[in-house]
Order: sequence, then structure tokens, then C-alpha cells
Amino acid sequence: MITLASDFGTPYPAAMKGVMLQRTDARLVDVAHDFPRQDVRATAFWLREVLPYFPPAVHLVVVDPGVGTDRAALAVRAGDHALVGPDNGVLLPVARELADSEGTEVEVFEVEYADPASSTFHGRDVFAPAAAAIHEEGVESFHERDDVVPDDGFEDLRFPDPELEGATAVGEVLVVDGFGNAVTNLPAELLDGRESVAVNGESAPVARAYAEVAPGERLVTVGSHGNVELAVNRGRGDDAFGVSVSDEIHVEV
Amino acid sequence: MITLASDFGTPYPAAMKGVMLQRTDARLVDVAHDFPRQDVRATAFWLREVLPYFPPAVHLVVVDPGVGTDRAALAVRAGDHALVGPDNGVLLPVARELADSEGTEVEVFEVEYADPASSTFHGRDVFAPAAAAIHEEGVESFHERDDVVPDDGFEDLRFPDPELEGATAVGEVLVVDGFGNAVTNLPAELLDGRESVAVNGESAPVARAYAEVAPGERLVTVGSHGNVELAVNRGRGDDAFGVSVSDEIHVEV
Amino acid sequence: MITLASDFGTPYPAAMKGVMLQRTDARLVDVAHDFPRQDVRATAFWLREVLPYFPPAVHLVVVDPGVGTDRAALAVRAGDHALVGPDNGVLLPVARELADSEGTEVEVFEVEYADPASSTFHGRDVFAPAAAAIHEEGVESFHERDDVVPDDGFEDLRFPDPELEGATAVGEVLVVDGFGNAVTNLPAELLDGRESVAVNGESAPVARAYAEVAPGERLVTVGSHGNVELAVNRGRGDDAFGVSVSDEIHVEV
Repeated sequence: MITLASDFGTPYPAAMKGVMLQRTDARLVDVAHDFPRQDVRATAFWLREVLPYFPPAVHLVVVDPGVGTDRAALAVRAGDHALVGPDNGVLLPVARELADSEGTEVEVFEVEYADPASSTFHGRDVFAPAAAAIHEEGVESFHERDDVVPDDGFEDLRFPDPELEGATAVGEVLVVDGFGNAVTNLPAELLDGRESVAVNGESAPVARAYAEVAPGERLVTVGSHGNVELAVNRGRGDDAFGVSVSDEIHVEV
Repeated sequence: MITLASDFGTPYPAAMKGVMLQRTDARLVDVAHDFPRQDVRATAFWLREVLPYFPPAVHLVVVDPGVGTDRAALAVRAGDHALVGPDNGVLLPVARELADSEGTEVEVFEVEYADPASSTFHGRDVFAPAAAAIHEEGVESFHERDDVVPDDGFEDLRFPDPELEGATAVGEVLVVDGFGNAVTNLPAELLDGRESVAVNGESAPVARAYAEVAPGERLVTVGSHGNVELAVNRGRGDDAFGVSVSDEIHVEV
Repeated sequence: MITLASDFGTPYPAAMKGVMLQRTDARLVDVAHDFPRQDVRATAFWLREVLPYFPPAVHLVVVDPGVGTDRAALAVRAGDHALVGPDNGVLLPVARELADSEGTEVEVFEVEYADPASSTFHGRDVFAPAAAAIHEEGVESFHERDDVVPDDGFEDLRFPDPELEGATAVGEVLVVDGFGNAVTNLPAELLDGRESVAVNGESAPVARAYAEVAPGERLVTVGSHGNVELAVNRGRGDDAFGVSVSDEIHVEV
């Protein structure tokens, strides 16, 4: 199985699929191709939320603002999974999550290839062929090829830790989903036993489900990712709380 | 085969796919994941139009404004098909259509599950596991499990009937598709033998195909669903006729 | 394998999938369903860029402003590939590309069918059944059926040739992709050895990769299709160069 994730929209992902289907009969599963354009951090967040639900697979990830420069092409082994994509950090958060859950370590390899046909579409010319090859060779053994070498200088990416001290927690909006839910880096425990909290100075009820407040009303809840989320029942939390990605969030409990 | 329909956008459906692929090798087919957000009626309409074209399958449907409340999780058997989703009526119109076409009755079951991991994403935590389990157990026999019990109190949903009397028919816009075609609940027969009709007081030609009128011109036609549709050749019917979903439509013949 | 391309958005393509899955177990691969609505030329361009990366397949293409009129339904054989869609030119550029690469000629057939169920959705009622049938019969032999007849009067479509004379080349914007890259019909060779060129009178640097200029800066590059492309690193080339589809482009070298 090979999953595909990118910020390409259409029809570019289809070219990647064609390239892979020339080389493998693997099942292909789209994760998303509308990740925020060239937004490495948001993509890394969503991959960490979604890919751990998959059985062992090769995951092709192409959000690649540096395409055509000398940034490396990486293949990352994380337990029974392999991730293939550019060396910009996008693969690391999910790789650590996958490796942790299997009790193993992340192993990062640089994948050497012949000159690609283009300098603007390495998804098609570099990463899709690599993902297909790794699928065919097997996650266990792909690194035995001569052109796959351990990479110790890869670019890493970590989400910011919240500051939790006393009655005020200071966090950050990591992403906003399509419903308008603003997902923060604040941990679920912050809401334990609370009926309401103050978000950036204004009180909002804590609820377990969106529909526990009236339509149009704000709530603070724990999202499906286990983080504190700012939401509105049948509305957009980002608008109602006046927050965007990367905004600082002060929560008083 | 399992089909998937939701209002999730991306990447949430991928988590549902991962969950199912941990449990089954079934073919997965996306119906749509951009149904109007939390719009149970529109989703029910489109499912009734699309799913009857499929061979026997399990259909996973998650448009679920009540997620995390005590609304039940349903599995509906309709002939050789099973539908899995929340108890808000979204499954019933298509279930009746599928059962009718096979000369059988709709059977509604409540699916009991262990506590889900989240109260905000039952698509991943409740419905996807249920759809995979029903696929593996078989549409014929899944209800033999102890935790599947007949449900007599489910929420139903029916589309409004038009009023057809004399020279004026009164109907309603049920949905507007992406082209801007306004689909009504008025039956095709209303247009039989007509060259034009008056829609909300203004005359418009009746045509069999969009391109039978000039580009930019309005027409009244029978859509692919068999209902009267207000359209514009190479344009948007909803704008040209000034109508939106749920608007009343008066047609004089 | 059957690929699907249309301007339908959702959920109409799912009806086509259901219809085909009633008739075949083929792998179904989406190319795109958000091609610019009723834009035959843009769709033809993208198909020519994407489909040649696929292994032998049947390609279902439905961008069909003339649906329900007497325009024919075509099946085009191009080497090991077959293309199925309306007679409006959309299939021809990619068919020539596929045939050329296999050293064969394009063969165009008209596909005769019984009266379709609708006059507004031939994707479901005409083209999907045809694609499934051709897949099952085989690209080699489908034309042996009585209801498949050679078509010599089909509608063709060719992209405009640029004018290349002296120091000025005159081309045209063929499409703009989702990133805002404006793809022209000017050949890559125009940029050979250049550090900058003047586009419509204003100088812009020639670069091999987007990230070779600063974020927000304009560049002229060779896109993944091998054509000259007007772009902005991490921005939209169409806005920065002030161009839209079909605009004339003057490049001085």
C-alpha cells in the first residue's frame, strides 16, 4: 500500500500515480492533495494525525517549496512504515509517532537518483519513482541499495511546546481545519474537570461534543487529535475566537 | 466494496480509510467528501441519486452534526446493500430506494460499540470500524451479532412532495449542484409536451439538453435524477432563476 | 485500469464509478474532476501532460458542453491506450501524444449505443458503460463490435503554435495551474543560455527552480511539461505577470 499526500491540487497527483502504477500494483490511497500550499508545518501536523491509523505502508509526501534546489530526497523508516519526501522536516513528526508506537527508532536515509526530467516537479520525477521502488523492495530492506545512504544532517521539525504554569497556559494555534476548528498545542488535561475557561480573556464553556452548546455558540473541547480545540457548534471557531494559524492562545483555568 | 461519503473535506476521510484498511482488504470508493457541511437533507438527496448505481456494497456515510451526543449509530440493510452512519435520517431515502429496487424492506439496526476514543470524530472511531466489520461479516449476517439490535425509533427523513393541481405546480428546490443547476422535487411529467413553462411568473423554454438553447440562456429541463431542473446553458441556473435551496417554485404549464 | 477525468466536481463521478463497477473489476484511478467547467482546451492540455505517465489503460474523459445534442460518443485507440469521451476534440491531443510515443497512429471510432436514460448526464449513461465495455473487451479488439464504426469526421483540437522569429517570440498562455503558474506554448529552448528575458516588455530572471529567486519574486522557467512557464516563488505567476488563459505573451531574448 502506498499513500499519497501533497499540496498539488489536481491534476499533478495523477502523474505521480501513473508513474507508480508503471512500477507497482500497490493499492494507492490519497491522504489529501489540498494541504495548505507550501506549508510544511501544517502538512506535518495532519500527517501525524492521520497516518498512524494506517496499516504498514509506504507514504509519499510532496510539499516541497525547495523543489529543484539541492535539498535532498529522503526515505525515512519508522517501524513497518516508510515515508518518502523532501528534506524539509515534513516527514519527521509523523515518523517519530509511528516509530514510538512500534517501540523503534526513526532511521533517515538520503535517496540518490539519476537526474530528474524536470526541476519543478520532483513529485513525479523523483519521489513517486522512489516510493514505488521502496514498496517493491520492501520497507525492511530498501536501505541495502547502494544509492540509499544514511543521512545525519536532515532538517528536523518539532511543534512548539505550550507553557503550562499556574492558572494560565500559553499555547499556539497549530492548524485550522475545514470546519473552522482551531487546533492548538495545548493538552487535553488542561480542561479536566472544568466547566469553562477564559480564552484570550473571554470566558467560553468547556464541552465534550460540539452539539452540547447551542448552534452558533462557542466552545472549547478536546479534538480528535487529543489537543484543545476552539470551536463553534455548526460554525467556525477560528472566526468566533478571532484566531489564525500561529496565533498565541492564553487559556486561564 | 465500501463506499465513503462525508462532509469532512480533507484529510479526515484518510483516517477513516486507514482504520478500515487495518480491518479489511475491501475496495474503497469515495462518493464525495465535500457534501454541504452538516446538511443532512442535501446529503440524503445526493446519496439517493448516486448509490443505486453501485453493485452491492457497504456504504459509510458520515454527515453528523450530533457527533458526541447520544444519537445512535445505525446500520441499515437494504437488499444486498448496507448503510452505516448516524441516526439523523441521512441513510433512509437511499435505503428505501435500494430496498424498493430489490423488492425488499429496509431494516434498521442500532450498532452498539465500546466507548469511542473521541467525542468529535465518530467517523474514525465508530462508523469506520462498523463499516469494516459489516463488510467482513457480510451484509446478510451482520445483524446476528449481539451488539446489533433492531431500532424502531430511528429518525426518518422524507423529501417534501410537490403540490400538483390544475395549471400550477408548487415545488421546492432540493439541491443546487456544482454547475448551478437547481434541482426541484417536481416530476418530469410536468414538462411533457410543453415548449415553455412559467417559473415563478417568468416564461422559460423547456429543453431536453442544455445546449438546445444559446449559451447564457435559461432553460427548464429534466435532470439526470428525473426531476425538473432549472438551468442555464454554460451558466448557473440558480443565479439566473434567482433561487436557492429550499425556495418554493411555482410552475405554470 | 480505467482512469476518470471530468469537470463534474462531486458527487457525479461516483455514479460513473458505480456504473463501471457493475461491469468490471478494473482498478479505477481519478485524474481530476475539477477541470475548468466546460473548458475543452484546458482539459485537453492537462490530459496530454498527465496520461502519458500511465501504463496502458482505458481513459474516460467527460468534459461535454454538448451533452444531449447529436455530437457523437468516441472511442479513440492510441497504441495500448483507449480514450472514451465526447466528440469535441478533448481526446485528440493526448491521443496523438500516446500514439507518437508508441510509434502508432490514432484511430477514431464512433461508439453507437442504445438511447441513454438521460439527456443531461451521458458520463453516467453513455461514456461510463462504454469505458467499462472497452476495458472488458480489450483495447486491441473492442472495435470489432458492430456498433463501433470508424469516424472520419471527428472534431479535432490543436494547440496554437508560437511565432518564433528573430529576438521576439509570440506565444500564448495555455493554462494556469492551481499554484498560479502560467503555462505557455513557448518551447523550453527559448530560454537556453539566458539569464533573463523580457516578458511583455518587462525583464524577469530565467531560473531552473522556483526557489532560485527570493520568495515573492517573479521568474521565467521551464515547467514540468517542457514549456516556458511564468511563475513566482511561493506566489502566483498569473497575478504577478498580469496574464490569464489565452493571453498573448511576447518574449524578447
